[in-house]
Amino acid sequence: MHMPQGKPSVVPEDGLTTRQRRTRPLVMVHTGPGKGKSTAAFGTALRAWNQGWAVGVFQFVKSAKWKVGEERALRVLGDSGEGGTVVWHKMGEGWSWIQRPGAEEDHAADAREGWEQIKRDLAAGTYRLYVLDEFTYPIKWGWIDVDDVVATLAGRPGSQHVVITGRDAHPDLLAAADLVTEMTKVKHPMDAGQKGQRGIEW
Amino acid sequence: MHMPQGKPSVVPEDGLTTRQRRTRPLVMVHTGPGKGKSTAAFGTALRAWNQGWAVGVFQFVKSAKWKVGEERALRVLGDSGEGGTVVWHKMGEGWSWIQRPGAEEDHAADAREGWEQIKRDLAAGTYRLYVLDEFTYPIKWGWIDVDDVVATLAGRPGSQHVVITGRDAHPDLLAAADLVTEMTKVKHPMDAGQKGQRGIEW
Repeated sequence: MHMPQGKPSVVPEDGLTTRQRRTRPLVMVHTGPGKGKSTAAFGTALRAWNQGWAVGVFQFVKSAKWKVGEERALRVLGDSGEGGTVVWHKMGEGWSWIQRPGAEEDHAADAREGWEQIKRDLAAGTYRLYVLDEFTYPIKWGWIDVDDVVATLAGRPGSQHVVITGRDAHPDLLAAADLVTEMTKVKHPMDAGQKGQRGIEW
Repeated sequence: MHMPQGKPSVVPEDGLTTRQRRTRPLVMVHTGPGKGKSTAAFGTALRAWNQGWAVGVFQFVKSAKWKVGEERALRVLGDSGEGGTVVWHKMGEGWSWIQRPGAEEDHAADAREGWEQIKRDLAAGTYRLYVLDEFTYPIKWGWIDVDDVVATLAGRPGSQHVVITGRDAHPDLLAAADLVTEMTKVKHPMDAGQKGQRGIEW
């Protein structure tokens, strides 16, 4: 049976001890056209919360109904005192670019401001886990410089993990990531005329 | 820009109203060799919880450290009174087949007993969302009859959603599913000798 056992398939000659390797901070990217990219990132946040970690969510796409479930659940968890803290950043009203197409220049500025805040938080070690939800898009659209992202992630201090979600992740971002998972759509109910629905899609 | 808009790509001639189509219960399968299958399922459970739904988790693989974060988070949420309820089934001590390989016959019986309980719950409408975690394996190993699974899912009453996770999902299960997402491993830190670590892997 092929069950993951947590065993590395090779032992690297990087001079790190097992303990160092076990606590090495990771950059994780969830990309691809399938479902589950963000959902899995928020699932990862549950594990971080359980460890008592400070979790920061930066949502780079705003929608009235998307991810309200995840947001409310993580807020309740963060406020419960049973685990870590959760701060959920929505990037302000300027982030509703889906609902107001055509005002691209403001959205680019908002995206850059969001990224500048992330850089400040990374420098300060504000969170132990960062969820940069839909962050691939402002990179793809040229609003945020991928070289700056890669350099910032490479130079971040301490043990800060970063999960980035979204389709069409930039190749340089993929190259810089420790873990990349591609979600592939094999079959989707919307292909058969199924409407998105409460409790499933949001 | 390719952002999901919740719009179906075709309108089916199935005689259903939009409202009926919007509330049609779904069978969702997360499969493939990549990470995020279970994590995304538990992320979906956050949405269900937020809707006030009763959530039932059936964990078909038991491990001392896996998914403790998700379990604790969902228990805290279920007990918070802010959303739906959560019941987490671990299938008893007999389910630790990873840690005690070689006693396969008991595990097969345990798997079948777990499935029989799911059938009873589906018939009774106990939950609104079922997470059948790692349920593909007992089907793959022949412990649970896939025809029985497909027929039971097809005949389940009411509006009960089912998410099934695990590698190597049976083709008949995929055919019966409304939504299939395959998680593909593009790059994994264990390939580079990275150890599994607290807060990320469990």
